[in-house]
Amino acid sequence: MTPLQNDLFLRALARQPTPRTPLWMMRQAGRYLPEYRATRARAGDFLTLCSTPELACEVTLQPLARFRLDAAILFSDILTIPQALGLGLEFEAGEGPRIDRPVRTAADIARLPTLDPERELRYVMDAVRLIRRELGGRVPLIGFAGSPWTVATYVVEGGGSKNFARIKAMLYGAPADAHRLLAHLARATTDYLNAQVAAGAQALMVFDTWGGALEPAAYREFSLRYMAEIVAGLTREHDGRRVPVILFTKGGGAWLPELAAAGADALGVDWTTDLATARAAVGDRVALQGNLDPSVLYAPPAAIRAAVARVLDSYGRGHGHVFNLGHGIHPDVPPEHAAAMVDAVHELSPAYHR
Amino acid sequence: MTPLQNDLFLRALARQPTPRTPLWMMRQAGRYLPEYRATRARAGDFLTLCSTPELACEVTLQPLARFRLDAAILFSDILTIPQALGLGLEFEAGEGPRIDRPVRTAADIARLPTLDPERELRYVMDAVRLIRRELGGRVPLIGFAGSPWTVATYVVEGGGSKNFARIKAMLYGAPADAHRLLAHLARATTDYLNAQVAAGAQALMVFDTWGGALEPAAYREFSLRYMAEIVAGLTREHDGRRVPVILFTKGGGAWLPELAAAGADALGVDWTTDLATARAAVGDRVALQGNLDPSVLYAPPAAIRAAVARVLDSYGRGHGHVFNLGHGIHPDVPPEHAAAMVDAVHELSPAYHR
Repeated sequence: MTPLQNDLFLRALARQPTPRTPLWMMRQAGRYLPEYRATRARAGDFLTLCSTPELACEVTLQPLARFRLDAAILFSDILTIPQALGLGLEFEAGEGPRIDRPVRTAADIARLPTLDPERELRYVMDAVRLIRRELGGRVPLIGFAGSPWTVATYVVEGGGSKNFARIKAMLYGAPADAHRLLAHLARATTDYLNAQVAAGAQALMVFDTWGGALEPAAYREFSLRYMAEIVAGLTREHDGRRVPVILFTKGGGAWLPELAAAGADALGVDWTTDLATARAAVGDRVALQGNLDPSVLYAPPAAIRAAVARVLDSYGRGHGHVFNLGHGIHPDVPPEHAAAMVDAVHELSPAYHR
Repeated sequence: MTPLQNDLFLRALARQPTPRTPLWMMRQAGRYLPEYRATRARAGDFLTLCSTPELACEVTLQPLARFRLDAAILFSDILTIPQALGLGLEFEAGEGPRIDRPVRTAADIARLPTLDPERELRYVMDAVRLIRRELGGRVPLIGFAGSPWTVATYVVEGGGSKNFARIKAMLYGAPADAHRLLAHLARATTDYLNAQVAAGAQALMVFDTWGGALEPAAYREFSLRYMAEIVAGLTREHDGRRVPVILFTKGGGAWLPELAAAGADALGVDWTTDLATARAAVGDRVALQGNLDPSVLYAPPAAIRAAVARVLDSYGRGHGHVFNLGHGIHPDVPPEHAAAMVDAVHELSPAYHR
C-alpha cells in the first residue's frame, strides 16, 4: 500500500497536534453533486450503485476531486446487513428503503442466519479494496455501519419509521426478543466492520441515526450497550496503524459522557449540542467530530463562513476536533455552498492550532 | 361560572400539594378515538372541525367522557394565526398543512396585518366559551398556541418541513427579517392567548414543536426569546385565579434551565430527558409536565403500567408534576392502551404524594 500523504484526520482522532482542523462531510458523496446524480443515473438504481464496486468507488472519489477534504468515506448504505441476512431490501423512488421480510417475532429472530461478510457482502470489501487503490494514499478511507438499534428499526418496522411502533412495542413488551435481535445485529456488524478493516478501511464510524428517539434508560439498554459491544470486538490496529472508531448518536447530546465510556476514539456531535459543552462533557477521553447544522448550507456563503467560525470557536483551541456537519449534507444544497464551508475551515482553523 | 370541581392540574402547576399526580394527554382529542373520527367525518374536513365551535367543543369533551383526565385542552391548531393573518391554510389528506401565501421576503413580512383575535379568531373564543359552559367546572380548560419559531417554520416554508431550508436560510442569511417576522408572530400570539384567557381558558400552553431543530445559540435568539416575550405579555390572573403558563420545546431537554428562566409556571419535557434530570436542572422554579414516550402505548397494558411507574419514580416524591406523554398521542394507538396509562397514574401516583 502507498503511504498516507494526508493523515490529519487520523491524527485529530488520536488527539495529536495538527496544523489545522481536518474535515469531511457526512454524505459527501451524494445527491447534491451533479456528478453523483450522473453516475447514479448510469447505475439505474441506488442498490446497483452501492453493490457495483467500480461505481461505488467512482462516487466515493467525486467529492475529493471537488473539495479539499481530509477523508473519503465508503459509499454504501446502513442496510447492507439486513440485505445480506436475506431480509430483502428495496429502495422505491422517493419512498425510502423497504425491507420485504421484516423481523417481528421470536421465530423470525431465531431464523436469522450468521453473516459471513466476505461472502454475502463481498461487493463492499471489493469496493473498499478498489477505493484504497484509487485513493493512492491521498487521504484515509472511512468504513462504516449502522448501529444495531438503528438497523433494527428498519428490520422490524419494514422500512423507515416516524413513531417506531413495532420495535418499541417489542422493546417494551418483549424486551428479550429485542435483545436477541440486537445481539445478532451487533455480532454481524462487528464482523462486517472487521472485514472492512481487513480490506483496507483506515477508520470506522457507527451511525446511530435513531438512538435519539429513545428515552435515556432505553438508549443505554438497547442502543449504547450494543455499540459498546461492537467497539470491544473490533480490530483496532491494521498494517501497524491504529484504526480509530467514531460513534455518533444523532440527538444524543445529553448522553455524550456515557457514549465516551464506550471505548471509541471519537464521538460525532449534532448541531443541537455546542462543541464547548460537548468537550466539557467528555474531557480528554475522546476526540469530537461535528457539528455545523447542515441547513446552514442553505444560507449565502458569507453566513456559512460566519457559522463555520462559530463552530471552530466553540471547540476552541487545541487538537482533537474533526470538522463536519452535524448530520448528512442535504440533497438540495448548492455545491458552491459546501465549497464555502470547506474553504472557511481551511482558512480559519489554523488559528486554533497555534 | 360554576366553581371548579377538580383543580388538581392547576394546583400541580403551582407546585401545591395534591393527593395524586394529575394527568392529561397531548392531542387527547384526536384520531386514535373512534368518536373523534366520527365527528371529523361529519365535519367533512379538519379546518371545519377546528372552526365550528360546536364541533370543536364536542371533540374537546370526548376524551373526558372516556378517561379520568384532569384537564381539557381546546381543540384547535397551531396554524390558526397564519390563517387569521390571511396567509391561506389548507390541510390536504395525508399531506399535512399547506400555507398558500408563504412569507419569504422583507416585503412579505412588512405586509403582515395586525391580528385582532376577537375578530379574526372569534370562532376560537366562541369555542372556548362554549367548552367552559359544557365543562360545567369538571376540570380546567387549557388554551394554547404554537411558539413564534414553530409557527414561522410553516409560514416561511409554506407547510411542514424536514430540513427548514428557507427559514434557516433567512435565519442565517437575513436575521433581521427573521426577527421582524418572529416579533410580529409573538405579538399576535400574546394577543391571541390573552383573548383565550378572557374567553375562559384557565391555563395556557405554548408548543415549540420545532425549537429542537435549532443549534443552542439560534434556539436562544430565535425561539426562547420570543416565548419569553409572550409570557411577559400574558394576563396571568383571571376571575381571581392565577392562569398558569406551560412552555414546551420538543427536543429541548438540554435547555430546560434557560427555559425555566423565561417566566412560565411549568415546562413540558419530552421522553428523551429523565424527569429526575429535568427536576434537578430546574429546581423549584417551575413545575414539570411529561414525559412518557407516546410509542410506549403500542406495547401491551402491563408494559405500559411499568413504564408509567418509571416516569412517576423518575419525578419522585413531592408535588409539581403533571403526568403527560412526551408528545402527542399517536393516531394508531388503541384507546384501551391510553386507558391503561390513565389507570396506572391514578393507582400508582398517590404513593408519591404521601
